[in-house]
Amino acid sequence: MLLNCDLGESFGNWKMGLDDEVMPYIDQANIACGFHAGDPDVMQRTLLQAKKHGVQIGAHPAYRDLQGFGRRSMSLHRQEIINLLHYQVGALAAMAEVQGMRLSYVKPHGALYNDMMAKTEVFDAVNEAMATFSQPLKLMLLATQDAQKFQAAAKVELLFEAFADRRFQDNGQLTPRSHPDAVLDGEQTLQQVKLLVEEGVVITQSGKKLALHADTLCVHGDNAHAVAMVRQIRDILPQ
Amino acid sequence: MLLNCDLGESFGNWKMGLDDEVMPYIDQANIACGFHAGDPDVMQRTLLQAKKHGVQIGAHPAYRDLQGFGRRSMSLHRQEIINLLHYQVGALAAMAEVQGMRLSYVKPHGALYNDMMAKTEVFDAVNEAMATFSQPLKLMLLATQDAQKFQAAAKVELLFEAFADRRFQDNGQLTPRSHPDAVLDGEQTLQQVKLLVEEGVVITQSGKKLALHADTLCVHGDNAHAVAMVRQIRDILPQ
Amino acid sequence: MLLNCDLGESFGNWKMGLDDEVMPYIDQANIACGFHAGDPDVMQRTLLQAKKHGVQIGAHPAYRDLQGFGRRSMSLHRQEIINLLHYQVGALAAMAEVQGMRLSYVKPHGALYNDMMAKTEVFDAVNEAMATFSQPLKLMLLATQDAQKFQAAAKVELLFEAFADRRFQDNGQLTPRSHPDAVLDGEQTLQQVKLLVEEGVVITQSGKKLALHADTLCVHGDNAHAVAMVRQIRDILPQ
Amino acid sequence: MLLNCDLGESFGNWKMGLDDEVMPYIDQANIACGFHAGDPDVMQRTLLQAKKHGVQIGAHPAYRDLQGFGRRSMSLHRQEIINLLHYQVGALAAMAEVQGMRLSYVKPHGALYNDMMAKTEVFDAVNEAMATFSQPLKLMLLATQDAQKFQAAAKVELLFEAFADRRFQDNGQLTPRSHPDAVLDGEQTLQQVKLLVEEGVVITQSGKKLALHADTLCVHGDNAHAVAMVRQIRDILPQ
Repeated sequence: MLLNCDLGESFGNWKMGLDDEVMPYIDQANIACGFHAGDPDVMQRTLLQAKKHGVQIGAHPAYRDLQGFGRRSMSLHRQEIINLLHYQVGALAAMAEVQGMRLSYVKPHGALYNDMMAKTEVFDAVNEAMATFSQPLKLMLLATQDAQKFQAAAKVELLFEAFADRRFQDNGQLTPRSHPDAVLDGEQTLQQVKLLVEEGVVITQSGKKLALHADTLCVHGDNAHAVAMVRQIRDILPQ
Repeated sequence: MLLNCDLGESFGNWKMGLDDEVMPYIDQANIACGFHAGDPDVMQRTLLQAKKHGVQIGAHPAYRDLQGFGRRSMSLHRQEIINLLHYQVGALAAMAEVQGMRLSYVKPHGALYNDMMAKTEVFDAVNEAMATFSQPLKLMLLATQDAQKFQAAAKVELLFEAFADRRFQDNGQLTPRSHPDAVLDGEQTLQQVKLLVEEGVVITQSGKKLALHADTLCVHGDNAHAVAMVRQIRDILPQ
Repeated sequence: MLLNCDLGESFGNWKMGLDDEVMPYIDQANIACGFHAGDPDVMQRTLLQAKKHGVQIGAHPAYRDLQGFGRRSMSLHRQEIINLLHYQVGALAAMAEVQGMRLSYVKPHGALYNDMMAKTEVFDAVNEAMATFSQPLKLMLLATQDAQKFQAAAKVELLFEAFADRRFQDNGQLTPRSHPDAVLDGEQTLQQVKLLVEEGVVITQSGKKLALHADTLCVHGDNAHAVAMVRQIRDILPQ
Repeated sequence: MLLNCDLGESFGNWKMGLDDEVMPYIDQANIACGFHAGDPDVMQRTLLQAKKHGVQIGAHPAYRDLQGFGRRSMSLHRQEIINLLHYQVGALAAMAEVQGMRLSYVKPHGALYNDMMAKTEVFDAVNEAMATFSQPLKLMLLATQDAQKFQAAAKVELLFEAFADRRFQDNGQLTPRSHPDAVLDGEQTLQQVKLLVEEGVVITQSGKKLALHADTLCVHGDNAHAVAMVRQIRDILPQ
């Protein structure tokens, strides 16, 4: 089980996230590519940090929406999604190669990630962008009960991620953030990680055991509390 | 002698330049990379056009300034220039590879081009960006009497471009656009091209012959008149 | 019956629309406010042109989306819509006052206009923004069979616009652009304008007469053909 | 002696500055207008905070450069500067009026502020923008030995600001930030404020007393330390 984290989300003079602090404890850095966050300078510094800590790097492309942080869905044509992915992933890939590094995967961000999971035509566009990219890259997406459907359609290798701190519903979907118990507390998070690692299951809102295959866990480095949580999660993972 | 042209300078709903019309007559397409003009969709379409006509492709990166079209100088640190180039060139390079194409060269745009010619530290930054890029690319810059100075400092192969329609001063500099006779008329342009191709010289404002080595001529596709001019220039070039 | 036209949609170095040519024939200029098109320089020049021709001016605010020209719907909170309108309308209002002019109305642009017509909560937000603006401004929206519903809810005076060149369905909606006969030809457009002015009706796709109250007709200045059309429409309007 | 502070410099999801914490201790809030920082939502929230604490509000307009935070000088034409100011100040003025508030002054930001102090043509453009704005607003600029020159040229009332924590040179200029002793420590800052308030002088780097007229002191709310400093400054000011 790997740990992945969204990083490089500063922009110009605005700092976001404790990238330095969380980098030592993660395996995969999802690096923003300039459309929702990140700029060429932030990207370069984030790549150097990932290199220093031997962390795998992935592109974290998004809809073009700085003010909305890529969290507002936009209706794009298939080719527009493909172009937007090639542009952002290509920019980061080149900056990585300058540092002697190679991208391993792509994890779409925010509304693009949600749209990819919810709309077949968006997944198809992302899938096509991945398949035609000049380097073979894996696609990171949400671990759900629909994993096989995505596997069957995928033209590239998939990486399924689970959220360490989010509660699952019986149908395998995440409990919406609007619900009071959508987010687990520290104790519950560690418990969920343990179960996922040891038994490959999560306990849903109603108490059912649900089998869930996850290759990687999404953790957060937003603040000191989040980073402390990542350290605790790291500690309970098998070495 | 090759013909190069700035292309792909549309953005979203805004069209600029008669790219389709001029593409058949040029050898090298300088493609905007999204910071002063161009967006991923424009870039993809421009690449496909270049491919169709067997035109070499180059990246045309710029300062980040859509409203000013990259024509306003900005003071950037060395590493910022390097990062900005790697990002833009990398994005285009990846989009080209998707189409089975490869970039041949980089020609900085507007104020970045002017700063590169005028300020040693900007040239050094551009030079460093070129030398560290993951693919070997040539750098296109202005043909001047200082060519040897640039050659000596360059870490990559250089391509010198001359402007077909701009009048030269005795010191080899272009006559500033503020001068009434800075831009040549059609007849004069063809005459200048002929001399440059056949004798490797230009006639300066004061009537002197000036030796000038140029690998490529910069032509324009802004409007029907400009495109007609490019066809005439093409006609007088050796096959 | 007035004629309104979207204007000031150039941006930086990109020109769009024959604003100079169409301005003499229209009554109301809908001026872009910088979020989908327009910049402070374009806005100032457009205001001066409108002043010269004694044309009423309206703000044409949009979602923040230069690349998509404000045509992509975005999910915004109520207060975000209000703020975005106050900002854009306020910027134009101040620039108008500098020229001794006053805004008369606001016509939302593109996806914001469509969302306002289709979603109650978006109309409510726009309505609230209008009602709380420091100057009393009219709101321009689409003439439909639902006019009374909008009238009942409106906190400001409404201006209903019809599209001269778009075919109406029996339910009073515009025939979607995807249909082959969504857009009228020149002869049909003039016929529709005539009927609307003289009898207050339009002939729908199926041939029915439909009563439609319109205060203003939306015309276009995109190209020479469109401008010629506007002149013809102007000619058949009562003086 | 008033205290002014740059505020509202968050953007979208990026937070900057402890606006809530510093607002109770200042007299004048310089509010970013969206070109270097701030967006309509941030602007609205900042206005509401200023209203709550009875703080005067000023517009803090800048060159259009989000990535560079408005700190990179750009060469603009006179009319472009005027338009850019009318646009930004107008947007904030309208948002203020919605809340029943009125702008009191304008303080240009970053590179625009520096250019205004250093280049006559930039000051002239700013001055003209102020004079032609629809509401009479004061212009805030740096207190220097050249105050009379600016006074003579100004078409609007001026507010001179001094920096509480910056060391002055004998010529009345600020010691450049590159110098090791450009920024005063806490004790020195309070000492400088005291002298300025009580005697209207500052002690320069070389120990000379320099008369300096300041209407307002620029303080900072970037972090907890800065806010604590503002409270201490507030305490030594006459009530």
